Amino acid sequence: MSRSRARLAEPIPPAEAGSRFLSEIREQPDALLRLLDHSSDYERVAAEIRARNATTIRMVGHGSSDNAASYGVYAFGLLPGWTALRDSISLTVYYGAQLDLSTSTVLGLSQSGRTPDVVEYVRRAREAGAFTVAVTNDTESELASIAEAVLPLRAGDEHAVAATKTYLNQVAALGLLAAHAAGVADGYVDHFRATAAQLRSVVAQLEPRITTVAVPFAFAGRMFVVGRGAEFASAREIALKLLETCRVAAEPLTATDLAHGPVAALDPLFPVWAIASDDETLPAVLEAATRAAEAGATIIASGNAAEAVTGADYLLPVPKPSAPLLSPLLSIAPGQLFAWALARTKGLDPDEPRGLTKVTLAR
Amino acid sequence: MSRSRARLAEPIPPAEAGSRFLSEIREQPDALLRLLDHSSDYERVAAEIRARNATTIRMVGHGSSDNAASYGVYAFGLLPGWTALRDSISLTVYYGAQLDLSTSTVLGLSQSGRTPDVVEYVRRAREAGAFTVAVTNDTESELASIAEAVLPLRAGDEHAVAATKTYLNQVAALGLLAAHAAGVADGYVDHFRATAAQLRSVVAQLEPRITTVAVPFAFAGRMFVVGRGAEFASAREIALKLLETCRVAAEPLTATDLAHGPVAALDPLFPVWAIASDDETLPAVLEAATRAAEAGATIIASGNAAEAVTGADYLLPVPKPSAPLLSPLLSIAPGQLFAWALARTKGLDPDEPRGLTKVTLAR
Repeated sequence: MSRSRARLAEPIPPAEAGSRFLSEIREQPDALLRLLDHSSDYERVAAEIRARNATTIRMVGHGSSDNAASYGVYAFGLLPGWTALRDSISLTVYYGAQLDLSTSTVLGLSQSGRTPDVVEYVRRAREAGAFTVAVTNDTESELASIAEAVLPLRAGDEHAVAATKTYLNQVAALGLLAAHAAGVADGYVDHFRATAAQLRSVVAQLEPRITTVAVPFAFAGRMFVVGRGAEFASAREIALKLLETCRVAAEPLTATDLAHGPVAALDPLFPVWAIASDDETLPAVLEAATRAAEAGATIIASGNAAEAVTGADYLLPVPKPSAPLLSPLLSIAPGQLFAWALARTKGLDPDEPRGLTKVTLAR
Repeated sequence: MSRSRARLAEPIPPAEAGSRFLSEIREQPDALLRLLDHSSDYERVAAEIRARNATTIRMVGHGSSDNAASYGVYAFGLLPGWTALRDSISLTVYYGAQLDLSTSTVLGLSQSGRTPDVVEYVRRAREAGAFTVAVTNDTESELASIAEAVLPLRAGDEHAVAATKTYLNQVAALGLLAAHAAGVADGYVDHFRATAAQLRSVVAQLEPRITTVAVPFAFAGRMFVVGRGAEFASAREIALKLLETCRVAAEPLTATDLAHGPVAALDPLFPVWAIASDDETLPAVLEAATRAAEAGATIIASGNAAEAVTGADYLLPVPKPSAPLLSPLLSIAPGQLFAWALARTKGLDPDEPRGLTKVTLAR
């Protein structure tokens, strides 16, 4: 076994394959701290949302940006108590639906600020009376110029095609804006800083041992990634990393949705990654993991309550943050590192997955 | 080849495996007509939504019910111009978030009316001031008793575990309610009737030839199902049927999301099902299908514009309905029939997938 696994690891294309992806995973704590330097920008936007009473938050983005938006549903719902939704882009951009947006804030999420239908959505939403905000790494981008306000992500240049620090800062940006909206930003800035320090330790400790966990999955063709509540964003983002860097058909599911059909597909060759974090959704995640284990699936358990998953075959625990709502900032790291290690094991280059480019201009 | 395929088809468990699933697929046009008999119930609820100005539509459900809710986003957005969202159940039920629901209507979608967290969500939403409506087959269920209003699905008893006619009637129910809300129900009832007749033809014509299309996929372990706009609901529901009845790791994607990562996973052993319907989203779907074909994927094209998909390997076209918004009522049938045929080819029983029960009480 060890011989064949060693062989698998040999045909890595260039020697440096994945080095950009890995260094950007490592840079995340610094990226998060940079974002916090712009807290006053987030404060101003939160004040403007209140002043305009535009408290229905419509988030639009694709890929990792849309995954981060899943987190926004919980950040805005739990902190200021606002309804936040991942809005349909096609309803507005393709079908030309005329919705009443007068009490809406639109957050356009795009690393590059160039995603065509996100730009077009924001343009139309502004015409329809929404308060429009660009959340982007490029404050000179088309998206930034079209929106009324710009929130800088400050993730810094991202060279690997698969996003890591951009995703982390998008999650943090939504959390920071929600904290300002709820008037609890002072405390949350401290929580973010503490979480950045924890993230640095998680990456440093996990990186040397992650390949040992990833290698047995070299021939896994499919996987479910299960999370619920705030961690559903982590489940979506880990699944996307596995798809784009490792060519694994990884599908994100909420804990409850697993039981509503997909559990029937499980067998010992169909691994399940369960993100178990210690909040109100934990019992549902544990129940789903038990159901998956009973169906014979191999279980990878991560999150800050990973040890609570009975029957887990692999454990990738992370520490608890000082504010439970920030757990996704830590939970994402094991998924990113696993994707990096698995891609290298399979001889793939996570810096430049086949068929992808850094800026996606697809419609 | 044909010999090994014939062998594959032999070990079907009981002779009648899938017979309930198939007969319920066939019953769908009648189920749809039964729903229309209750049009006045839908009219009353639409009037009440208007009277209470509760025009933010929050839909909650799991599995097929949640897939139907994806359709509701478009039906309400395009007909009355209302914002409809698939709301987070966990935000309210697990985290206890306190959102302002005074201008919201909640549609609780559950075939059995017994899905625990849907029932609990509706209970809490009613306490928070939302107008609550149960959309269910069982008008005597707990869900129906908790909600202020009940909209009967009238799909009739569904014996196969995997939903078919319930899903169809949930989609139709959301469309009918949206049509009443927009004051265009008279025309739409005619459109629904005409669509039911078309659906009868589609099923009759496709059933004899679907096994020929399904057999080559006997060993496919994974698939993407691509749709956009109103057809994203169809993509989600077809993927779920493949997961639960055929054990295929089928993941639904919007046309644009395919380009934002998942396309990197494609190869000739990773088929892509593209739902191409003739509306404003068609160019995006055609572009995605082309990108998938260039990545070497085998392409199944369905929908009423299936023939427009260049390079498709298999075509499962359906006719155009008289109202474009009703195309998902026809697009779903090829996916249901394909799942039935593929399950039988693989020796699986789509009436009773392993690990599933008809009423899911999982948290």
